[in-house]
Amino acid sequence: MSKPLVNRLCVIGVGLIGGSLARALRNAGQVGEIVGAGRSRTHLETARALGVIDRFETDLGAAVQGVDLVVIAVPLGAMQAVFETIAPRLAPDTVLTDVGSAKGSVVAAAVTAFGELPGTLVPGHPIAGTEKSGEEASFAELFQHRRVILTPHASVSSAALEKVRAMWAAAGAQVVETSVEHHDQVLAATSHLPHMLAYALVDTLARMDDSREIFDYAAGGFRDFTRIASSDPQMWHDICVANRTALLEVLERFTDDLGQLTEAIRCGDSDYLRETFTRAKQERDQFCDTGDV
Amino acid sequence: MSKPLVNRLCVIGVGLIGGSLARALRNAGQVGEIVGAGRSRTHLETARALGVIDRFETDLGAAVQGVDLVVIAVPLGAMQAVFETIAPRLAPDTVLTDVGSAKGSVVAAAVTAFGELPGTLVPGHPIAGTEKSGEEASFAELFQHRRVILTPHASVSSAALEKVRAMWAAAGAQVVETSVEHHDQVLAATSHLPHMLAYALVDTLARMDDSREIFDYAAGGFRDFTRIASSDPQMWHDICVANRTALLEVLERFTDDLGQLTEAIRCGDSDYLRETFTRAKQERDQFCDTGDV
Repeated sequence: MSKPLVNRLCVIGVGLIGGSLARALRNAGQVGEIVGAGRSRTHLETARALGVIDRFETDLGAAVQGVDLVVIAVPLGAMQAVFETIAPRLAPDTVLTDVGSAKGSVVAAAVTAFGELPGTLVPGHPIAGTEKSGEEASFAELFQHRRVILTPHASVSSAALEKVRAMWAAAGAQVVETSVEHHDQVLAATSHLPHMLAYALVDTLARMDDSREIFDYAAGGFRDFTRIASSDPQMWHDICVANRTALLEVLERFTDDLGQLTEAIRCGDSDYLRETFTRAKQERDQFCDTGDV
Repeated sequence: MSKPLVNRLCVIGVGLIGGSLARALRNAGQVGEIVGAGRSRTHLETARALGVIDRFETDLGAAVQGVDLVVIAVPLGAMQAVFETIAPRLAPDTVLTDVGSAKGSVVAAAVTAFGELPGTLVPGHPIAGTEKSGEEASFAELFQHRRVILTPHASVSSAALEKVRAMWAAAGAQVVETSVEHHDQVLAATSHLPHMLAYALVDTLARMDDSREIFDYAAGGFRDFTRIASSDPQMWHDICVANRTALLEVLERFTDDLGQLTEAIRCGDSDYLRETFTRAKQERDQFCDTGDV
């Protein structure tokens, strides 16, 4: 049998993403031992019982001992504390990556915790997930044919970058690289803004007088549209804080555009309405898969 | 064999909704002959070739001759012209219903065309559909377990109301009744507002500099969220015009709420963010089906 890609893997935060990555690497035969780490013994015991991890530690410093790859899959708001806890205990050649939905704040947290960006750190973000959370929702196929965006810095070690690339490829993902700033702008537009709209829409309707009836009458389109409002509130709080600048920029653009659309409805500006809807339909049909998507 | 519910049905506008209703009634054995009517001979020929209708007329006045039930399934903007064309040709006992997404404008168009609300008219709206359009997208099961909202007026004939109720029940739908005003408010909130947000979001992103990359990076949540932006632009133009007042009211509420959320992100108001996201998640989880919805 050939040597696995990762001899001993430590996953800090064994939830949907961390758990699914552990399962995928195990299925691919690319990992020796998987050590789970986190704050909640109950969750870690469940993850071990499900076979997601082999053993666990609630002491993060102990968890990273003798490990060749650490994946940090905690909410963005917990990232700095994790870096600070493990920094003094990491071996110099242990490769470090994360799965945070914003990258600027992760880099800043690492600089604070380590004093500089470690050459072994490769910030990453798998563009995958569901509105569900937790180790029990995890599954090995989550990353199949999904993109993973890595945002390596100038002084990253090529061995570390190669190892993280190979890990995601083994999990079935397509790996791309971009800058921290560009990642945060693109994700603000494609993910963070839509989540804000879904949350705000459900909240607007929930606070209307006949909210029960309103939800009762909602059809399939509404269910699809608001599915992402069932996402984890703490995680999305952290994303709002972490990617504040880029998110505010797209929120401002969107609010302007919605204001213009509202004005067109008010004035009965048929040309504006038809042109906007037609352009949006064309873009959506063109860029998203056709068929039943 | 027992007599079918509808002896001769006329469907004006054989698209997704009209075509699916024709198919459903035929499958249920509740219709004798189905006459399709509309402007486009090509579409009507396709519908006949597909077996959706038995024959067709492009002269609406001829189409409603000898018919016991007329279903008008044209865009809202075409409703008044249809009423005006058929008004002088309808037999006094021919029952008339429509499937428009807004009801106030349909009632107003009928009053204009007929001089008063005919006792045979039962305005209706099936809460069903996909982002696709046209007779080729129609299917008999579209209304299964879906709601149909009827908004009968005070002077409706009980025979007409009963016939339209029975027709939708035969198509598999659950029929409910409410007022025109209430229908238009509830639909503005649950359907028309989400469509505006989806269109505006796709349009905002399409006009950003790196729009191609933005759509390339979009994950499953984005596809779900923007599916309704692939809906027919002309139909949604007509809805914006027809349900202007109620739509502007919910747009204003939503814009206020989004403004508050934006301000909370700007200020880093963690309590506001957590509370809003938590409330929205609870509402969404509670009111929509649980499981994979």
